[in-house]
Amino acid sequence: MTTELNYFDFMQSQRRALHQNPEIGWTEFQTTAHIIEFLKENNFRVLTGSQAINPEFVRGRDAALAEQAMTRAAAAGVAADTLAQMEGLTGCIGVFDTHKPGPVIALRFDIDCVNVAETQSQSHLPNQAGFRSHNPGLMHACGHDGHTAVGLALAHWINHHHDQLSGVIKLCFQPAEEGVRGAKPMAESGQLNDVDYFLGMHLSFIANSGEIVVDPTHFLCTQKIDIRYQGRSAHAGAQPHLGRNALAAASNAAVQLLGISRHGDGMSRINIGELHAGEGRNVIPAHAELKLEVRGENSAINQYMVDQVMAIAKGCAISFDVQYETEVMGEAVDLNNSPELVALLADVAAHTPGVTHVVDQRIFGGSEDATLLAQKVIEEGGKALFFIVGADRTAGHHQTDFDFDEQQLQTAFDLFSQMILRLQ
Amino acid sequence: MTTELNYFDFMQSQRRALHQNPEIGWTEFQTTAHIIEFLKENNFRVLTGSQAINPEFVRGRDAALAEQAMTRAAAAGVAADTLAQMEGLTGCIGVFDTHKPGPVIALRFDIDCVNVAETQSQSHLPNQAGFRSHNPGLMHACGHDGHTAVGLALAHWINHHHDQLSGVIKLCFQPAEEGVRGAKPMAESGQLNDVDYFLGMHLSFIANSGEIVVDPTHFLCTQKIDIRYQGRSAHAGAQPHLGRNALAAASNAAVQLLGISRHGDGMSRINIGELHAGEGRNVIPAHAELKLEVRGENSAINQYMVDQVMAIAKGCAISFDVQYETEVMGEAVDLNNSPELVALLADVAAHTPGVTHVVDQRIFGGSEDATLLAQKVIEEGGKALFFIVGADRTAGHHQTDFDFDEQQLQTAFDLFSQMILRLQ
Amino acid sequence: MTTELNYFDFMQSQRRALHQNPEIGWTEFQTTAHIIEFLKENNFRVLTGSQAINPEFVRGRDAALAEQAMTRAAAAGVAADTLAQMEGLTGCIGVFDTHKPGPVIALRFDIDCVNVAETQSQSHLPNQAGFRSHNPGLMHACGHDGHTAVGLALAHWINHHHDQLSGVIKLCFQPAEEGVRGAKPMAESGQLNDVDYFLGMHLSFIANSGEIVVDPTHFLCTQKIDIRYQGRSAHAGAQPHLGRNALAAASNAAVQLLGISRHGDGMSRINIGELHAGEGRNVIPAHAELKLEVRGENSAINQYMVDQVMAIAKGCAISFDVQYETEVMGEAVDLNNSPELVALLADVAAHTPGVTHVVDQRIFGGSEDATLLAQKVIEEGGKALFFIVGADRTAGHHQTDFDFDEQQLQTAFDLFSQMILRLQ
Amino acid sequence: MTTELNYFDFMQSQRRALHQNPEIGWTEFQTTAHIIEFLKENNFRVLTGSQAINPEFVRGRDAALAEQAMTRAAAAGVAADTLAQMEGLTGCIGVFDTHKPGPVIALRFDIDCVNVAETQSQSHLPNQAGFRSHNPGLMHACGHDGHTAVGLALAHWINHHHDQLSGVIKLCFQPAEEGVRGAKPMAESGQLNDVDYFLGMHLSFIANSGEIVVDPTHFLCTQKIDIRYQGRSAHAGAQPHLGRNALAAASNAAVQLLGISRHGDGMSRINIGELHAGEGRNVIPAHAELKLEVRGENSAINQYMVDQVMAIAKGCAISFDVQYETEVMGEAVDLNNSPELVALLADVAAHTPGVTHVVDQRIFGGSEDATLLAQKVIEEGGKALFFIVGADRTAGHHQTDFDFDEQQLQTAFDLFSQMILRLQ
Repeated sequence: MTTELNYFDFMQSQRRALHQNPEIGWTEFQTTAHIIEFLKENNFRVLTGSQAINPEFVRGRDAALAEQAMTRAAAAGVAADTLAQMEGLTGCIGVFDTHKPGPVIALRFDIDCVNVAETQSQSHLPNQAGFRSHNPGLMHACGHDGHTAVGLALAHWINHHHDQLSGVIKLCFQPAEEGVRGAKPMAESGQLNDVDYFLGMHLSFIANSGEIVVDPTHFLCTQKIDIRYQGRSAHAGAQPHLGRNALAAASNAAVQLLGISRHGDGMSRINIGELHAGEGRNVIPAHAELKLEVRGENSAINQYMVDQVMAIAKGCAISFDVQYETEVMGEAVDLNNSPELVALLADVAAHTPGVTHVVDQRIFGGSEDATLLAQKVIEEGGKALFFIVGADRTAGHHQTDFDFDEQQLQTAFDLFSQMILRLQ
Repeated sequence: MTTELNYFDFMQSQRRALHQNPEIGWTEFQTTAHIIEFLKENNFRVLTGSQAINPEFVRGRDAALAEQAMTRAAAAGVAADTLAQMEGLTGCIGVFDTHKPGPVIALRFDIDCVNVAETQSQSHLPNQAGFRSHNPGLMHACGHDGHTAVGLALAHWINHHHDQLSGVIKLCFQPAEEGVRGAKPMAESGQLNDVDYFLGMHLSFIANSGEIVVDPTHFLCTQKIDIRYQGRSAHAGAQPHLGRNALAAASNAAVQLLGISRHGDGMSRINIGELHAGEGRNVIPAHAELKLEVRGENSAINQYMVDQVMAIAKGCAISFDVQYETEVMGEAVDLNNSPELVALLADVAAHTPGVTHVVDQRIFGGSEDATLLAQKVIEEGGKALFFIVGADRTAGHHQTDFDFDEQQLQTAFDLFSQMILRLQ
Repeated sequence: MTTELNYFDFMQSQRRALHQNPEIGWTEFQTTAHIIEFLKENNFRVLTGSQAINPEFVRGRDAALAEQAMTRAAAAGVAADTLAQMEGLTGCIGVFDTHKPGPVIALRFDIDCVNVAETQSQSHLPNQAGFRSHNPGLMHACGHDGHTAVGLALAHWINHHHDQLSGVIKLCFQPAEEGVRGAKPMAESGQLNDVDYFLGMHLSFIANSGEIVVDPTHFLCTQKIDIRYQGRSAHAGAQPHLGRNALAAASNAAVQLLGISRHGDGMSRINIGELHAGEGRNVIPAHAELKLEVRGENSAINQYMVDQVMAIAKGCAISFDVQYETEVMGEAVDLNNSPELVALLADVAAHTPGVTHVVDQRIFGGSEDATLLAQKVIEEGGKALFFIVGADRTAGHHQTDFDFDEQQLQTAFDLFSQMILRLQ
Repeated sequence: MTTELNYFDFMQSQRRALHQNPEIGWTEFQTTAHIIEFLKENNFRVLTGSQAINPEFVRGRDAALAEQAMTRAAAAGVAADTLAQMEGLTGCIGVFDTHKPGPVIALRFDIDCVNVAETQSQSHLPNQAGFRSHNPGLMHACGHDGHTAVGLALAHWINHHHDQLSGVIKLCFQPAEEGVRGAKPMAESGQLNDVDYFLGMHLSFIANSGEIVVDPTHFLCTQKIDIRYQGRSAHAGAQPHLGRNALAAASNAAVQLLGISRHGDGMSRINIGELHAGEGRNVIPAHAELKLEVRGENSAINQYMVDQVMAIAKGCAISFDVQYETEVMGEAVDLNNSPELVALLADVAAHTPGVTHVVDQRIFGGSEDATLLAQKVIEEGGKALFFIVGADRTAGHHQTDFDFDEQQLQTAFDLFSQMILRLQ
């Protein structure tokens, strides 16, 4: 690989290779190993395991799934010491130090796939071009394969343009964006604390090819929470009073959670997506679990919802004398993009080939956990921007026949690399 | 009044006078003043106020009602110092010390009326004979006027037969039996602790004239509890999230309380008799109150129910972030009569004029708080008996046209006085 | 009274007289009688009783309160035939027919007071000037005394300027605006169906003296609903299974109502302001009542909330095998003012003495049942406007020390009379 | 096989063969085929499929499991026409007609196993003697292998003693006793309607080797019910109001079900053993299922519980505007054994070798669906008895290391055969 690299070809080939081996959140061991190797080849210092991911803040990680994935990764040829360095945690941060005074810039790329079985349709490009998912039930149906490819291309570009650069550049390859699980522990790794400028991007979603949304708005705050109750079994006929009914606690909790008061200052949401309780028809249920999410128009409303959830979780445990635990399974916050970065990107985009419309504000309307990384940077005095690179798509995100316009990988690459240059 | 007293005439006239001035639980100031005076005339030392009623354990006393009743009593001529000695608490214990070694015997008589308006029917004896209730909405419709009259006659008899007696005799005139409220604080007064033999009695109820039930069974354990929630008001349209919804807490508590698991070892009950919450249609409710009762076939089951109630009361307060308090408004326990006393009464009854059937066991099936006094005596090593003196009645207890066969006052008197003699 | 009437003096004196005799919704018999008399003196045909108020749609009327008020009105000298014409229903519509071709214009004035005890403070003008409320616990604390005074002045003005007028003018004196109860039955009287232009107004509220808000927005849709459950009593200890527990139905309904899902399209609200259930601690409760309100950012959302309430009311009746009924106790809708009228008022206001700011749009943010009258007119092809005449106030509406700047009665009179002239 | 058959050896070998191939309720195709063949060899007319099992009343049959079991049976050599005659329904009734006038006697044997994995312990007889279950997760851990072996031995005995017999004898091999599922459809087959004497038996359970309980009491009435709600999915963030929340319906149903009032006339129970709802965290749940059971001390109380369940199932469907269905998954009733049969068995038992104690009454305390067959016989004018043949056991019923004293197969055989002779 030389400086003469054709970045589009590189990104397309990387994207397609990644597409063939999609890995779900917290199991991206092969993906991460590939990134680590490439970053090292390009003179990045690579932070892995607990250096990049604070284990205390890991959200929604299934230990059994991770274990299986590690076994699979080893079988697929990932070196034992690479796996060891990961400490069971996926994702990594590549740090490129120019050894010249200058800003600290962080770019973020998410690397996980979704639980979707890829279509068999022959009109689907990955089928036509032979790069469909090898992993049953898993698919890069949200474009993170593209995001990762852009990140790798930028790693190469940074290494080969180091003479034009100053300061430090951190490439954050974040695991487990789906379910908004992976950003929090990366935000809490300490690696974002010294960042002056943070940039994140999503392909497609709310914009088509040619459009760049430089200031998307209305990122929804959300928290994903599991509540688990543990009671005590008893024979329902003979000794019901000896039971501690976890199903009763969970059902009452569900009823109370749905009744959390609306907030006078704006939109709030609660959904209990799943409730599972009990072991058998004639046994007082000893176990119950609720999987829920709350949302808020802003952080205060979201936190209000979380507070109510926590109170109810506890109250119902007390009412029914059962043990309980709550676990945050994912989270994202809202984001006000830094105006300087918005203005700068608008200017850069206006001069980028292929960009036909620079869209100022457009409602994002969903949750994205890059907001947690951005929030951390802003809290520590830096500036942050999350923008949208429009890309035509064949179907909605997370659909079985989703695909995006690969040409826009180039647009994304151009925008990031120009922003880096302009931020020197 | 002399030793030549015709006890039946005395009891009839006392009973009728009491019937004219019925006083509801914790307001029996005039009734108590009359008893105090009569006990003193008969050389009893009289314990009043906190000497007879432990204020810490007072159940279900309405302070405003008591205040009004004291004003009424003063207006009716009750001496100021008598009222002062009562300390706002009705009922009293008369202690007759023979100054000879011997057992401590306690007899219990309940003195309160019920919230029933007496019938206007001319076939009703109190109307015919001119001794109907003077107090609108109040009536001695449970026979406590008769019980009190028997107690007064026994006071006279004890004083005039002191040469045949030894030890100490305590006549316990208990307030507020209705709602099972008055026994607990009398049991906790300390005056029952040294009692060797405790005797209590109810007229009629489960037996007709001529029958004596010497060992009634199945006294139901019960606890009457109020739960109160205090939250915070807020405008329901503009700022619902600032409210702390006491109505929500109370409604959820009601729902959970009804769902307390049945007990495998026997009968249990729960009823939320009343729920009142809220201040206005467009205000988040800040106050709520539940009035409930639990019952159990035995003390363990009753206590199980109470424990669940307390857990739920607390759990719902936590769920909705409101303050709460619980108050025991009444209670009664079960009772196993002491076999020696049962046997003794059976023998006494068999030799008492007018007794045609000595019934061994019959189900009582209700709650009676004399059981708490009996329990205290038994716990401290004494023996206890609660029995039924059959009496024909014109209608069920607590009915507007209830009346009982006054001749059985004599039977009750005979049984008590003979028991006292036999227990020397 | 002559055409030389000083309208400000007249309105001030009328307002103060009305302030002294505040009458709560559906009891405004004396107020209505006064209006009827004045309208007749000024050559209006007066529609009363079921002519003005469709009995089928009466909301939240307390029959006992109305009965007492009629007795009071008779005692205060209201003629028997006037009372008879009212048919127990307050409010009236005065119809002035110019007998010349022209538009039908309707003006609306609300006449009821609120349940607030007037302050004793000497700084309060009604106390200083000797016109405080004679009726304990009742007060014109929302300015309807002023609204009514303006309506009466306009009646005089119309009569004395009939030569400048054409068509028909209807002055709608609406009862029971508080609780949004009185507009619906007036809207359903048929008297609004032929109206070309409808004008309504509120003093103060969201604007100070000198300001006229010509196009207030965000009138909240709301419905006030009572749900009543009737079950069957039973002894809670002996035969609980024979009861039909109305308290259980109501508590579960409360819990479910609080859990009605938020609406994705905008603001919704639910509040159960009161819940009362049960007759006694040891009786399975046979009666229960919930007093609630829903709100919605628009009619569709409000109706969504109403639909959910109705489903839950029924569902809980079925679950607990109890009878139920629901009653709409009040309602209001949203309003989009007709642009022509907004523009016309803006022009009129700009030329009215004392108006310093013509405010285009400002959020109203509350509920006002004039919207139902406006809605009826618009549905039938007419145009409608509800505007705000700013007025400084001494305290918030419905506060014990509320008072408003009386000078603005003149501004309101001027705006209405000029609008009438301009709409010819 | 000859009349010289050693019945103990035969039953032991049959029981052990059956033990090796346990089949769960409604999948007993191989077991049934074996029984059919043996009955036919012994001159029984065999009723299968819908002749023995009324399809309308089949409870808790998993069609997929049955399908797999039929495939397995075919592979194991069960003849195609035998399978065809079963019509997918297991169990059969063998009818032996002596062609002599006499009573109709029915004996009942249950044939299914339980979902228990057999212990690996070497002290466990099936392991020592090499007849452990071949079917993972399935085990005859309730003694039905023994019951079936006794039934087969009796078939042989009847055939070879037909000269001593008159009337008709029906051997009912009932499927799916576990979960009390199989008796109802057999009771509704019509085959029990002409029965004069019905006999059923359980080995062990509440009696040890040597004991015969001739009149077990307190068979609990029970009904096993599934409730399923189907709502409509919607995005929980964007359009929650478009969802129809099945989880909300199910949770509220659970809460209400737990709150079904106790019955004043005796023991009642309710348990929701399992609740499963929802498809994903951010989707309004469209599906929910509750698996519950009720019990009652008698049929009336049990039916009261069922009625409440059905009302609540419907009420919650209405409250949340979701579809619902309920399915009876199993049922059993109580039983008062016919005194003549009790007396006869007591006499027979007293003369049976190996019987050391003839126990009159002992509490059964569980549910057994033979009661439904007995009930049918009694309703149609016959007499019925269900008795216990004591047998020492190595562990409780349904335990992984359960085994029973095989010698008692002989006792059971002796009792049944003697009863048949005595009932001629």
